[in-house]
Amino acid sequence: MCAIIGIYNNSESSTLAYMGLYAQQHRGQEGAGIVAANGISLSRHMGEGLVSEVFSDGEIFKGLKGNMAIGHTRYSTTGNSDAKNVGPLMFNLEDTEISIAHNGNLVNIDHVRKKLHRAGSLFQTATDTELIIHLLAREVGGTISERLSKALNSVQGAYSLLVITPNEMIVARDPRGIRPLCMGKLNDSYIFASETCALDLLGATYIREVNPGEMIVLNGGSIKSFQFTESLTPKHCIFEYIYFSRPDSKIFSENVDKIRRKFGKNLADESPAPTADIVLSVPDSSNTCALGYSSRSNIKYEIGLIRNHYVGRTFIFPDQRLRDLSVRLKFNTVKGVLEGREVVVVDDSIVRGTTLRKLAKLLKESGVEKIHVRISSPPVKNPCFYGMNFPTHGELVANNNEVDEIRNIIEVDSLSYMSLDALLNSVDQPDHYCTACFSGDYPLPIQGEE
Amino acid sequence: MCAIIGIYNNSESSTLAYMGLYAQQHRGQEGAGIVAANGISLSRHMGEGLVSEVFSDGEIFKGLKGNMAIGHTRYSTTGNSDAKNVGPLMFNLEDTEISIAHNGNLVNIDHVRKKLHRAGSLFQTATDTELIIHLLAREVGGTISERLSKALNSVQGAYSLLVITPNEMIVARDPRGIRPLCMGKLNDSYIFASETCALDLLGATYIREVNPGEMIVLNGGSIKSFQFTESLTPKHCIFEYIYFSRPDSKIFSENVDKIRRKFGKNLADESPAPTADIVLSVPDSSNTCALGYSSRSNIKYEIGLIRNHYVGRTFIFPDQRLRDLSVRLKFNTVKGVLEGREVVVVDDSIVRGTTLRKLAKLLKESGVEKIHVRISSPPVKNPCFYGMNFPTHGELVANNNEVDEIRNIIEVDSLSYMSLDALLNSVDQPDHYCTACFSGDYPLPIQGEE
Amino acid sequence: MCAIIGIYNNSESSTLAYMGLYAQQHRGQEGAGIVAANGISLSRHMGEGLVSEVFSDGEIFKGLKGNMAIGHTRYSTTGNSDAKNVGPLMFNLEDTEISIAHNGNLVNIDHVRKKLHRAGSLFQTATDTELIIHLLAREVGGTISERLSKALNSVQGAYSLLVITPNEMIVARDPRGIRPLCMGKLNDSYIFASETCALDLLGATYIREVNPGEMIVLNGGSIKSFQFTESLTPKHCIFEYIYFSRPDSKIFSENVDKIRRKFGKNLADESPAPTADIVLSVPDSSNTCALGYSSRSNIKYEIGLIRNHYVGRTFIFPDQRLRDLSVRLKFNTVKGVLEGREVVVVDDSIVRGTTLRKLAKLLKESGVEKIHVRISSPPVKNPCFYGMNFPTHGELVANNNEVDEIRNIIEVDSLSYMSLDALLNSVDQPDHYCTACFSGDYPLPIQGEE
Amino acid sequence: MCAIIGIYNNSESSTLAYMGLYAQQHRGQEGAGIVAANGISLSRHMGEGLVSEVFSDGEIFKGLKGNMAIGHTRYSTTGNSDAKNVGPLMFNLEDTEISIAHNGNLVNIDHVRKKLHRAGSLFQTATDTELIIHLLAREVGGTISERLSKALNSVQGAYSLLVITPNEMIVARDPRGIRPLCMGKLNDSYIFASETCALDLLGATYIREVNPGEMIVLNGGSIKSFQFTESLTPKHCIFEYIYFSRPDSKIFSENVDKIRRKFGKNLADESPAPTADIVLSVPDSSNTCALGYSSRSNIKYEIGLIRNHYVGRTFIFPDQRLRDLSVRLKFNTVKGVLEGREVVVVDDSIVRGTTLRKLAKLLKESGVEKIHVRISSPPVKNPCFYGMNFPTHGELVANNNEVDEIRNIIEVDSLSYMSLDALLNSVDQPDHYCTACFSGDYPLPIQGEE
Repeated sequence: MCAIIGIYNNSESSTLAYMGLYAQQHRGQEGAGIVAANGISLSRHMGEGLVSEVFSDGEIFKGLKGNMAIGHTRYSTTGNSDAKNVGPLMFNLEDTEISIAHNGNLVNIDHVRKKLHRAGSLFQTATDTELIIHLLAREVGGTISERLSKALNSVQGAYSLLVITPNEMIVARDPRGIRPLCMGKLNDSYIFASETCALDLLGATYIREVNPGEMIVLNGGSIKSFQFTESLTPKHCIFEYIYFSRPDSKIFSENVDKIRRKFGKNLADESPAPTADIVLSVPDSSNTCALGYSSRSNIKYEIGLIRNHYVGRTFIFPDQRLRDLSVRLKFNTVKGVLEGREVVVVDDSIVRGTTLRKLAKLLKESGVEKIHVRISSPPVKNPCFYGMNFPTHGELVANNNEVDEIRNIIEVDSLSYMSLDALLNSVDQPDHYCTACFSGDYPLPIQGEE
Repeated sequence: MCAIIGIYNNSESSTLAYMGLYAQQHRGQEGAGIVAANGISLSRHMGEGLVSEVFSDGEIFKGLKGNMAIGHTRYSTTGNSDAKNVGPLMFNLEDTEISIAHNGNLVNIDHVRKKLHRAGSLFQTATDTELIIHLLAREVGGTISERLSKALNSVQGAYSLLVITPNEMIVARDPRGIRPLCMGKLNDSYIFASETCALDLLGATYIREVNPGEMIVLNGGSIKSFQFTESLTPKHCIFEYIYFSRPDSKIFSENVDKIRRKFGKNLADESPAPTADIVLSVPDSSNTCALGYSSRSNIKYEIGLIRNHYVGRTFIFPDQRLRDLSVRLKFNTVKGVLEGREVVVVDDSIVRGTTLRKLAKLLKESGVEKIHVRISSPPVKNPCFYGMNFPTHGELVANNNEVDEIRNIIEVDSLSYMSLDALLNSVDQPDHYCTACFSGDYPLPIQGEE
Repeated sequence: MCAIIGIYNNSESSTLAYMGLYAQQHRGQEGAGIVAANGISLSRHMGEGLVSEVFSDGEIFKGLKGNMAIGHTRYSTTGNSDAKNVGPLMFNLEDTEISIAHNGNLVNIDHVRKKLHRAGSLFQTATDTELIIHLLAREVGGTISERLSKALNSVQGAYSLLVITPNEMIVARDPRGIRPLCMGKLNDSYIFASETCALDLLGATYIREVNPGEMIVLNGGSIKSFQFTESLTPKHCIFEYIYFSRPDSKIFSENVDKIRRKFGKNLADESPAPTADIVLSVPDSSNTCALGYSSRSNIKYEIGLIRNHYVGRTFIFPDQRLRDLSVRLKFNTVKGVLEGREVVVVDDSIVRGTTLRKLAKLLKESGVEKIHVRISSPPVKNPCFYGMNFPTHGELVANNNEVDEIRNIIEVDSLSYMSLDALLNSVDQPDHYCTACFSGDYPLPIQGEE
Repeated sequence: MCAIIGIYNNSESSTLAYMGLYAQQHRGQEGAGIVAANGISLSRHMGEGLVSEVFSDGEIFKGLKGNMAIGHTRYSTTGNSDAKNVGPLMFNLEDTEISIAHNGNLVNIDHVRKKLHRAGSLFQTATDTELIIHLLAREVGGTISERLSKALNSVQGAYSLLVITPNEMIVARDPRGIRPLCMGKLNDSYIFASETCALDLLGATYIREVNPGEMIVLNGGSIKSFQFTESLTPKHCIFEYIYFSRPDSKIFSENVDKIRRKFGKNLADESPAPTADIVLSVPDSSNTCALGYSSRSNIKYEIGLIRNHYVGRTFIFPDQRLRDLSVRLKFNTVKGVLEGREVVVVDDSIVRGTTLRKLAKLLKESGVEKIHVRISSPPVKNPCFYGMNFPTHGELVANNNEVDEIRNIIEVDSLSYMSLDALLNSVDQPDHYCTACFSGDYPLPIQGEE
């Protein structure tokens, strides 16, 4: 997962891009980068780490002058945290520089990549993002946006894209609208961002979602929009609501906070825990949902787990023995709240189950009598090929075990998942969402598993 | 404010000290340091920044070998963030190295410092901590603990102290017990820490508070305790409950979380807001108190403000214009929760009032109709000379303004502070606490203001 | 100018490559990099600065395992010190990784680059080196060495090349042999280096030059050599003798030291300075030549100028006023040697003339009575397109001025250059050398000037 | 060994101090620091490494404002390279800050240190320099210069000192003048430096040596000088001529270059090598001496050894096997010069003998037939207690072996040292020099050996 930000027509474009990345830091902590365009050339600064670490010095922005900028933060994915893959990619086309920031994942690209390789294309990175620019480079003639349009029509997958050349910005979103992308305005500037929280921080006004299959071309002060590909039923990633997005964002035209509250209420209806004394959330992603559960069930919401916000990238575990303390480093338990209580623990999802098992152990060591786990999503049984970093089938605990077996593995007294029906019942247009990770019903056909 | 940690009799003493500092990171983010003792000499590593930044490399611990270690984190204070003042101080006594970690502040030391200067003592730092070792150095004859005892009897103030030489650890606390200091056990090792959350992380068992006026001497595998000074009525810092300590800690023999909940309930009783729709906390320090307020008042607790945990030390504000966004960078508002609502905002204290004023503005911009601010402490009218970093009289908004004027300044619809009676009513032994910042009733006489 | 090093069949290949770069540090101080091949994949470490700075930590070599390695140091060139251009370049071919280290410059490549751009090739860097790999990538079928051979046959210029894939090393040199490249053996390992001083440091035995137009392919323990292109009369860069190479190296099958001594003698014959008291060299490059001049002319060699070896890359000139001290920072004068003397100053060449002018001023301030400058090369009138970093015509002082005018500019009492005849007379096969910078007689046609 | 620099009455004092340290870099590469005085307070910047590394950023000088500055570089000594010991030391006296830069070593200070410890003085460092300030601090009453004078009269040893407070600079030199210290003028500013090469770089005029036993006090624009202690026969360190000082400096009122040339001539007279073909120096310290030997003996001076100036502090030897290459990394041999030759190798001194042994081996491997080593000093048989970093008796090869045994150890064909008579015969006032390292005749009594 990643965040992207684009600023068009603002003399402080790179500074605003920085703020926009900062607001979206939760979508990617591995690295960040910004590319600015000054009409003649592009300049880039990028690095590994948090946005505030990569851009730790105001001097950096002196090297990022121009009226347009795009930015990118990168999420930690397994095995491939190469510095080259961080930040907007940059290339030399025949007569111009070009840069691209991408959220999402292309699918079924092996044969495309192979074809390009055979035709003599040299790849800088292992990213699918680079593929798009290679395809664009091989389209002869036409404007950059025409060439990009052709390139995108020859691939499939999830993509919210920002492309800039020294004097043009192009915005595009895949025909299913799998990843979010919104558009805002700040005086005479246009802002594009993965989540609206970036607009809020910048004081920009939300205009609308970039539509699935839409391309927006901004240059010379003008803005033009068209459908670069046929319109299909949207398949937004419902997991953005469950876990990924910030609760104060509006995603796919809905308030995340509102949806999460509904999740909590539906979960309370479906899976009550009438004997429980208190409702706990696994902070911070489940807070809103836990409040919904509490309010519907009339079981008191309490703060029994506190997330330690100093657990940073930089933390090192001095030795193996201490590595077992990982969950204790991440969460503090409030014994006064927990001792002798029967608790509902609301969490958003279970992937491998290891963290939840350790957390349950920690709760019991802190005096909890009984633990009822309530998960605000159905069992995650299938990997995501569209940008969410789930592991393979084999590592997904729900792919290999029934709910009762999982309850045994994580050693709690009861465990309920939200049903797919209740999940879809929480949103306005259920058929507009991709639920492949739960249902296996992939909107785009997938060939083989990574 | 600072945190201290001491580990006695453990072959991984410096690693454990690191974990103990890490758990107490909230007590000081400016710098951190650890001194280890190996029977023959001391070794130190220290630096500016977070514990995880200063100890970012496992190799560091190879240079910190020994069975004893003390650690210190330093809180940001105005104007004096000199690297020399970070971490345990180290000195060469005649026949040994000595190191000291100190939480608290000595008072009325100007004449002592002057006397030492005139007698030819050379100071490395501007700290009061160094004074203690100079006094010790000038005590002729006797053991280190006897000399430390004499030195401490010639000063006044707040001090929770850990002192080590290559083969001895000495623990001491001022006769009023102003700052916290507790003692735990992990197998055959003794642990001393400012807060019990450090014991919890290490898996150590809580034994007891170090008593006011107590000195504990650990060497050669033995542990001896005695009162090095007369016993006085304790005057614990009540502000540790209000704001500073972690809710999952036990401080002054009480659970912080429990006290904060009582604060919330007492505040709801004293200062109801019957027309409000929801209760909000200013996260994270006021969460527990807000839950108490909600539960007593039967007004629903909601999460309408989210703290952005990526606001780090390293964040830079590119220009003045963006500096006005500081509160927006720190807090996100959840519009779905706030729009059209009349809200109670529970906060722990008001110092200058500037942050709260900006926050109120932000809430209104996010659609809040009416704001009732409820503060879980009385007005802070006086500076603290015992280790809390309050500004001078002139900058304390409550020193210069009546409550109604403050309400005007921060532009909210109602404002109530908790009364001193209600505050003291929340703890078991009201006369055991220092309330000087509210009442001006300083337990130790203060000469002049900084 | 750059240095390259290749190590084949040695379990410590990257360490040896490091030593080999270290020995050749004088050929490029801007950056350095090493790529190691382990049979399956390539790994790279590179950075800006001196070899010892880039490889400052033994841990680095743990990430560079394998039986083969190539290395590269980069010389400071104007305006293009991009980190991307440092060190061996790396690319993903269809089914393998490939890396290339290159000393020299291709010429007349604009149309090739344009053709590749139009065919959709995306360039990572602005280097001519990358072009070679793009051409290789577009050659369909055949082995890597066959494809490289075809690629090289479609370009012109100076190139001493080392290419590796995970299990193969390929060595190639342009048909004119413009830049040096030699081959040595260390037990069962083959070593390739720009200069023999790298072999000496490694304790390797010199075998021979890599021949102009020769390609050597090493894989599976075997070594094969063939001419990949027709054999032409060599045109070695004679400036390697004059300035660039280390005096203890053997270059183009000749000892640099021996040639430089001949330069000095020929210069003394052509341009005596009979009234001079002493001969000085501009250290360090002119030392040997000055000794030759002294021995032939029977004028005493003295050390009157000492180079300050602490002037590093990192030195900064605090303000403009001090910038005028640059030559004083670089050279110390020994007044006892200089006062009241009439001196011959032997220098290797004059490019812009600014340093020599400042140096002459410094010598006079130190008491020198008369200065006779003797240059061990003809006037540099033309830029080099084959890898030497001379400025454009306009900046070359000898392109715009007669010798007597230059004498006036640098303010000395007499100035003589070595004649082209005397220069060529110093080497065994005069027609085997490129003298274009003096004569304008370019062995490869040049289209336009940079 | 160290260098010191002091700048009085110049608005760019810290920049000039930097240049002055830079010029004296050869006297200490381990660390550097500068303290500036602005009339009210002192500021300091210091660090480990070369001057250009420690002061790598012009911004540093913005923090070093004021009309006075002192600087210090530190030489690498065994076992005690603590960052605390680098640069001018700083202390808080009663009513002022004070800083001190010191070249030389105090002797017989154990009992003074013990007395101070017993009286309660706390030491920051293990340096003898700190002792001086402790003694000063304990002198009651009087000006800083009076107190410093009393402090210095209670110790013995070698000291060239620069002391500053916010508004005063004090310069002092021990009564024997063991280490050099000179005084210069640059417009209205006074400059004090260890060697005159610092004056030369700054463009300052040399005035005179600071006299042994002299104290100079500069404040309020005035300069006063007096003898703070009795005048004794000077005992300048003759080793400064032999090895330490730069040849272009004037030291103890003599040109180093001139003295070294005499050394070479005297050595040629005493120890000819009539069958030798060429004279080589071990660069760079022996160059001048070797020229003297060559000129007197009429044996040709040749450059057969080239020092590799890239061997920096930062170089790391990847493994033990390569450590044996250390001398090869340091020196390159020019085979064309060496092959088949019988050579005189002129070196300045032999301490342990290990480097010379490796060098001789390297020369033979490069084809040298016979090696005659000529040393421009007598055998070093005794440690120096006055600031030169010789090892203990046990490690000095000449303390344990006769000349012929040493010849065997270093494996050369002949070996001669210069006699003490010839050494003293090279200087004007032989009784004004300390020769203790050769003769064991210590001008200040030494108790015990370190």
